[in-house]
Amino acid sequence: MVFSSSLIENAVQEFSRLPGIGKKTALRMVLQLMKMEKEQVDEFTNALSRMRHEVQFCKKCYNLSDSLHCSICLNPARNKSQVCVVENIRDVIAIESTQQFNGLYHVLGGILSPLDGIGPEQLQIAPLQDRVKHEGVEELIMALSPTIEGDTTVYYIAKQLNDLPVRITTIARGIAFGGELEYADEMTLARSIAKRLPIENYVSVQPRS
Amino acid sequence: MVFSSSLIENAVQEFSRLPGIGKKTALRMVLQLMKMEKEQVDEFTNALSRMRHEVQFCKKCYNLSDSLHCSICLNPARNKSQVCVVENIRDVIAIESTQQFNGLYHVLGGILSPLDGIGPEQLQIAPLQDRVKHEGVEELIMALSPTIEGDTTVYYIAKQLNDLPVRITTIARGIAFGGELEYADEMTLARSIAKRLPIENYVSVQPRS
Repeated sequence: MVFSSSLIENAVQEFSRLPGIGKKTALRMVLQLMKMEKEQVDEFTNALSRMRHEVQFCKKCYNLSDSLHCSICLNPARNKSQVCVVENIRDVIAIESTQQFNGLYHVLGGILSPLDGIGPEQLQIAPLQDRVKHEGVEELIMALSPTIEGDTTVYYIAKQLNDLPVRITTIARGIAFGGELEYADEMTLARSIAKRLPIENYVSVQPRS
Repeated sequence: MVFSSSLIENAVQEFSRLPGIGKKTALRMVLQLMKMEKEQVDEFTNALSRMRHEVQFCKKCYNLSDSLHCSICLNPARNKSQVCVVENIRDVIAIESTQQFNGLYHVLGGILSPLDGIGPEQLQIAPLQDRVKHEGVEELIMALSPTIEGDTTVYYIAKQLNDLPVRITTIARGIAFGGELEYADEMTLARSIAKRLPIENYVSVQPRS
């Protein structure tokens, strides 16, 4: 692409650093910004700049937070005895959006993956042990990806917490709601038959009021 | 989506104002910005902010420009007797990228569309007349969309310039390079047969060195 304005060229360049944004999409965004009021563009750039400079990691659960502790950890209505262990903050947002979980979180910042050089020291596993030891955690709900790395991480953490009086559970795996049996992969189908539930446990999900 | 940080929520909100960006894509972008160095994010926001505040419309051709006149109008190597009339600056970028045109441009800022309330006064048609009258323009190349509105605009401008000694041409319509005949629409195919060229006019396009 050939531009007659280096300011536009520069903006397109910067935009196309973002994931999934090619030059053409970047140009569309830039032209949209040019159509917006200057004040609106200032709001946009200020929001991004403030976010990058002011957002921090919650000292307790390593979730993204506006202050030292995140709003979930600070909320007195949440059940502090249940902690849901997740890989990243996107998982926190996904689970929060279901409105089905009222406990706290612990964000590991990844999962064990020796091939990528990610060992226990790269993850927030030691702080998790501290929380279990000192904060009256009764149940750890492991909500990690159903992959070999995810399972390895679950087993590793379970082993580390072996001598502590904490119940470790994992989220249920099975056929997704609305999923058709014939398209389910064999692993999932096999596990969902092996881990079948009595009919009285078959509850439908209702949003928490 | 439920966020534990209002700064993140705000940034996602701002991002999803852009065209084609939903909440999930906005979140992906925001998390990518969180992973980038603060300095890089500052460069990003500064580039956008400077662009919006400093880019102006070229006083001559209404192209986007860093200064009073754009780099194309200021370039002494360009042929000032040829002016290519386009709808918007995206068209300028597209034509410049072909490296086949060495004249100047005139950006109308839209095409005539009475139903959308766009009449001749909303477009840069009067300044185009001035340019033709006073700046030695010998040929106007109309590069507008091959739609009813585009054709109407071409005819309207041609009528306005009726008594001036300027040649008005339009870019060629036909089967695209690499296009297969059987998939071409009837209009295009019909026109490309009616406007067939003698074989000696059939030149292949070479990038300008």
